[in-house]
Amino acid sequence: MKAVVYKEPYKVAVEEVDDPKIQDPTDAIVKITTSAICGSDLHMYEGRTGADPGIVFGHENMGMVQEVGPGVGKLKKGDRIVLPFNVACGYCRNCLANKTGFCLTVNPGFAGGAYGYVSMGPYSGGQAEYLRVPFADFNALVLPEGEEHEADFAMLADVFPTGYHATELADVRPGETVVVFGAGPVGLMAALSAKIRGASKILVVDKVKSRLKLAEDLGAIAIDFTATDPIEAVQEQTDGGADKGIDAVGYQAQAGEGKDETPAVVLNQLVHAVRPTGRLGVVGLYVPSDPGAPNEDAAEGKLLFEIGTFFEKGQTMGTGQADVKTYNRQLRDLIIAGKAEPGFIVSKEIPLAEAPGAYEKFDNREDGYSKVLLHP
Amino acid sequence: MKAVVYKEPYKVAVEEVDDPKIQDPTDAIVKITTSAICGSDLHMYEGRTGADPGIVFGHENMGMVQEVGPGVGKLKKGDRIVLPFNVACGYCRNCLANKTGFCLTVNPGFAGGAYGYVSMGPYSGGQAEYLRVPFADFNALVLPEGEEHEADFAMLADVFPTGYHATELADVRPGETVVVFGAGPVGLMAALSAKIRGASKILVVDKVKSRLKLAEDLGAIAIDFTATDPIEAVQEQTDGGADKGIDAVGYQAQAGEGKDETPAVVLNQLVHAVRPTGRLGVVGLYVPSDPGAPNEDAAEGKLLFEIGTFFEKGQTMGTGQADVKTYNRQLRDLIIAGKAEPGFIVSKEIPLAEAPGAYEKFDNREDGYSKVLLHP
Amino acid sequence: MKAVVYKEPYKVAVEEVDDPKIQDPTDAIVKITTSAICGSDLHMYEGRTGADPGIVFGHENMGMVQEVGPGVGKLKKGDRIVLPFNVACGYCRNCLANKTGFCLTVNPGFAGGAYGYVSMGPYSGGQAEYLRVPFADFNALVLPEGEEHEADFAMLADVFPTGYHATELADVRPGETVVVFGAGPVGLMAALSAKIRGASKILVVDKVKSRLKLAEDLGAIAIDFTATDPIEAVQEQTDGGADKGIDAVGYQAQAGEGKDETPAVVLNQLVHAVRPTGRLGVVGLYVPSDPGAPNEDAAEGKLLFEIGTFFEKGQTMGTGQADVKTYNRQLRDLIIAGKAEPGFIVSKEIPLAEAPGAYEKFDNREDGYSKVLLHP
Amino acid sequence: MKAVVYKEPYKVAVEEVDDPKIQDPTDAIVKITTSAICGSDLHMYEGRTGADPGIVFGHENMGMVQEVGPGVGKLKKGDRIVLPFNVACGYCRNCLANKTGFCLTVNPGFAGGAYGYVSMGPYSGGQAEYLRVPFADFNALVLPEGEEHEADFAMLADVFPTGYHATELADVRPGETVVVFGAGPVGLMAALSAKIRGASKILVVDKVKSRLKLAEDLGAIAIDFTATDPIEAVQEQTDGGADKGIDAVGYQAQAGEGKDETPAVVLNQLVHAVRPTGRLGVVGLYVPSDPGAPNEDAAEGKLLFEIGTFFEKGQTMGTGQADVKTYNRQLRDLIIAGKAEPGFIVSKEIPLAEAPGAYEKFDNREDGYSKVLLHP
Repeated sequence: MKAVVYKEPYKVAVEEVDDPKIQDPTDAIVKITTSAICGSDLHMYEGRTGADPGIVFGHENMGMVQEVGPGVGKLKKGDRIVLPFNVACGYCRNCLANKTGFCLTVNPGFAGGAYGYVSMGPYSGGQAEYLRVPFADFNALVLPEGEEHEADFAMLADVFPTGYHATELADVRPGETVVVFGAGPVGLMAALSAKIRGASKILVVDKVKSRLKLAEDLGAIAIDFTATDPIEAVQEQTDGGADKGIDAVGYQAQAGEGKDETPAVVLNQLVHAVRPTGRLGVVGLYVPSDPGAPNEDAAEGKLLFEIGTFFEKGQTMGTGQADVKTYNRQLRDLIIAGKAEPGFIVSKEIPLAEAPGAYEKFDNREDGYSKVLLHP
Repeated sequence: MKAVVYKEPYKVAVEEVDDPKIQDPTDAIVKITTSAICGSDLHMYEGRTGADPGIVFGHENMGMVQEVGPGVGKLKKGDRIVLPFNVACGYCRNCLANKTGFCLTVNPGFAGGAYGYVSMGPYSGGQAEYLRVPFADFNALVLPEGEEHEADFAMLADVFPTGYHATELADVRPGETVVVFGAGPVGLMAALSAKIRGASKILVVDKVKSRLKLAEDLGAIAIDFTATDPIEAVQEQTDGGADKGIDAVGYQAQAGEGKDETPAVVLNQLVHAVRPTGRLGVVGLYVPSDPGAPNEDAAEGKLLFEIGTFFEKGQTMGTGQADVKTYNRQLRDLIIAGKAEPGFIVSKEIPLAEAPGAYEKFDNREDGYSKVLLHP
Repeated sequence: MKAVVYKEPYKVAVEEVDDPKIQDPTDAIVKITTSAICGSDLHMYEGRTGADPGIVFGHENMGMVQEVGPGVGKLKKGDRIVLPFNVACGYCRNCLANKTGFCLTVNPGFAGGAYGYVSMGPYSGGQAEYLRVPFADFNALVLPEGEEHEADFAMLADVFPTGYHATELADVRPGETVVVFGAGPVGLMAALSAKIRGASKILVVDKVKSRLKLAEDLGAIAIDFTATDPIEAVQEQTDGGADKGIDAVGYQAQAGEGKDETPAVVLNQLVHAVRPTGRLGVVGLYVPSDPGAPNEDAAEGKLLFEIGTFFEKGQTMGTGQADVKTYNRQLRDLIIAGKAEPGFIVSKEIPLAEAPGAYEKFDNREDGYSKVLLHP
Repeated sequence: MKAVVYKEPYKVAVEEVDDPKIQDPTDAIVKITTSAICGSDLHMYEGRTGADPGIVFGHENMGMVQEVGPGVGKLKKGDRIVLPFNVACGYCRNCLANKTGFCLTVNPGFAGGAYGYVSMGPYSGGQAEYLRVPFADFNALVLPEGEEHEADFAMLADVFPTGYHATELADVRPGETVVVFGAGPVGLMAALSAKIRGASKILVVDKVKSRLKLAEDLGAIAIDFTATDPIEAVQEQTDGGADKGIDAVGYQAQAGEGKDETPAVVLNQLVHAVRPTGRLGVVGLYVPSDPGAPNEDAAEGKLLFEIGTFFEKGQTMGTGQADVKTYNRQLRDLIIAGKAEPGFIVSKEIPLAEAPGAYEKFDNREDGYSKVLLHP
């Protein structure tokens, strides 16, 4: 079958690889209809991780069930499904606690597995014609038949639940004010989730005008941090500080236009922009090992965090990758009911064969490549 | 009346000061029967804060109601009461949310007030014969008549609820394993609270043998961090990491015997000692401004926090001073029912007049001065 | 001053009564700008309670602060405020637990007090020119200056928080399906609240076409229980049962058009209409003593409840009058932000002097009198 | 193999039946070491259900893994395990929400399955030499090797988690007072669970002296409802009402010594014995169809519930069979740590062959047969 294969830094190719097979009785094989390119794929693409050549990318996957193993009971051939980017077993201690992003079974020695990602276990990616899905009854979310909402449902694999997870970590409640740093796909999904949860005011901070425009279309107030001090802007809009804050940026944050990476800048701005007793939901990535970091401490994931102010304000911070399985059914139902249309962030849909060019353009932040769907 | 007055660094005196008076209709005047010396009093005593000479110390106060203002309805003369160290109004937004440690009324421009403490509002301390209590109906917790449990009840002003707050921030649940860094009064109260909440295993890390002995008396497993690596010790005892972790040390942490302060060491050890998806409850103090810090960043409350590992493990951290009012009634009832005896940490009870010597010995960490009660 | 005074069954009059005075230092006097007539006022009006002649009605009150006692610190003359229908002290055990509808102080011997209501304490009602407000700093919610949103804000006294309380008791979460029995003011506010909380589908059951029309305007699906079996209709729309259910009807329920009262019919329909593991939020009134009940058991508040099915389905039920104080600030902020307009249920606004006729028409269920605001 | 087979009302026999076999790849076969007789087995034994002759009893099972299917990954031959009485799939909507007692997969058309129980699916019971376990990786809880704590661990199949579930439904928190109606195995486990959760005072109501003695041994206060009015007794001990209440009796309740069944008596006593805003956890069984009920309404599971008082007090009630899987790991860890010894309720341990006599004596409430373990 055809698949997007990592060759070397800044190079992927669409090549023939072996078709996936049922390996365990609880496996299923899925014929992919849509697989999205994710910002985190760029970490591997840029060679900033230890990913070996040959890996097939793709952790935002949906398609039709092609074949099921004899231990699969719920899923059947022809079911239209979407898969969480996390691979999970469903019976380990963390899965039982709904922390499926930290499954203890699928990636021995580590808490958490994923498709097509370095260090996340032996699971090939879905930017391909077919995909093997382990623990298929547990991992698959069944969708309505047909082709409706394809782009919306594709967002259920990662970015919509990840944005929602941020609002869950921050415990966003009806009537509250929320500030979201970052208006990329995850930040916009966090803003959408805050809206769904009944926030009274949503503030979104970024510097890219097209992203801020999308935030405004959602009803959020856009703050361009290159034009104004975001802490002051938030405090003015919220009578001294937002109730809740979301970091959808992570360690590759920049303090301003053209500035170098200053990894803790967003985290520390959140501490100041959020009111005493507030909560922070951090889904922007922070890593324990970053070879490209600006200094030795940052290379080990140690950042200068304003813990003194954080403590004095009695704030709380929740972090980590999303437990997609915990949220995706409810979010699917909102899409079906017409209450959420997360596909608005999709900027382009192309055949699988055009993936290499799309990676290049996405990496260059070219217009129209902020969220690309591949259709094999 | 007599009161403990701060004179200059390393010097307090018992002097005559004006008797407190009813200033507002909702005030009460309390005749103090017990006021405890707290570790945080030493910050002022050592001149490490901006406290001006003349301040009367004492935020762990209990006594008998002597007089009430005309707007006081519940309290009456003769009631035996204990007071949260936080002063709170009961009707601001934070008080309504049970965050009485962050009252927006009592200390304008800041979230939170306290008795006898620099920057915490115009409230004189209770290491004195009498004390003015604002918003008395809200702040006072009524105790059973008599003199029983005096030392236990005195712990309700601060350390018992603060230790309990740590277990609440960490969300300690029945059957879980918990590691507590620090076996001072607050750490021991956190261990006691974890026991009350049904923890299956409690590990306490410190270097002082007498403190570790008290932890063992509670049924906890003691870990001497000068004799063993605490992260490894915890991981061995808990199959890879404790479910929950508590920081009862704060920014004056030391990495080992005789070593300099390394302010983030406990926080970072917790990240490693606690399992993925675990929660940290941080009640050890971190401050946004510390003139005595080992470096410039620390002086501004910025510490090198291992956010990369914290994020990868999907951990959560709650911080801040305790909202005593939220817990003290239930903890009082446990004392009355004989299910908790927090007074076991009290090492000495002396007359008010002996306070100056007690401060000196406590500051020198002399045996028998770890928790001193003053009786005016 | 002028006030609406209860004379005898089916008769109220607007009469001169004594002006209210500051009685306690923590009191305030409010000049009423709006007071709403509530369905529960009809219980007294119809003589179905033990209300004595002379009582001044009105528990949904808003206005301007006219005078404050010397123990009032936050409120000041001229503040525009709305008052919860519950009177509460702010410092008793239930108030501290945010159960202000069950205050132990304001109505000795009972849990809970209210303005202008039989058995709810010595608090005169606000269908008058002025109102005395006890514990004013605690009870008053300050509104933006001016006259904007008067009708919306008036709904914060009772029906909007009561509807919201129902969704809180039922723990309505994003993506869920919710069925609301009753499309009177409280049922519509419950539907609005479910929408704010992100429900994917809201079903509203009633028989009055104009009410069902308002539910549809909110985006809900209307079910006319005189035209279809409501249990079947809900199950069809929700794949076997709604996630959550709300009873906004209470003991005066009717099983169908023209039928007698069958007090438990709504409760039992909810049990069947809600899925296993679902939760019921019951804010429709049930009373322990009802002289007008259809049988002896019902007269003592004992109803034939289908506990067998309820238990087999593992359902949960929360009940009771709303703790308005726990929700009204957040709901106010949604109104200010333009995210909620609860005033859409107001059908008529009239001068105080016209109250007697409005009571009569409301009691006869005449068109246009479903929610009347009085302006003194 | 040998198994306990239901023959006719009041008669079981130990007979040869077919050995169980792996039917699905995710099955395991367990060699039973202990299976307990449960009070709910008596419902079938007495012919009060529609159970057909031939059914093998036994839903409280533990043993050693004998064989696993090819789709089983975690469990391996020789593992010592205990099984929840509920059979669950692990991937349906209810299982994902930790409501494993209401699995939608294992018993089509109904929410919930169990071993060896009428209407609970095609799962043979474990009062036998071997047992087939579906979805074995999900359902089995692995225990430490050896034979230690056999009786304690056997309680993890049903009664300990069921008692704990009651405290979870009632949300028992540290420092609270709790009343438990019923001192049978489940009631005693609820009292033990309340103790683990830090209750300050536990009151247990029953009429059987030996049961009340066991409650007192746990530190609870025993109330004999044949000697005193239980509502008054609770109110006296708790200053007007317990914070939380537990029904561990169910529909076969009696109002007093020698009286007929009065199915709602315990439920209504709880409403009066628990304070306003309190919560009830109901795990005593109520059924939608009871042929032996004292009247027609009760035969359909409709009981006269004091909803009027329940509502006026703003109480909440949670019900249903326990989701064992949600609690059993933590409870196991408390047993291993020596913090809980639920096996204290076991009154007799006998070989499988003696089961028929044990059923007879248990049904006659003979001394020493209150909780019997069978060892094949």
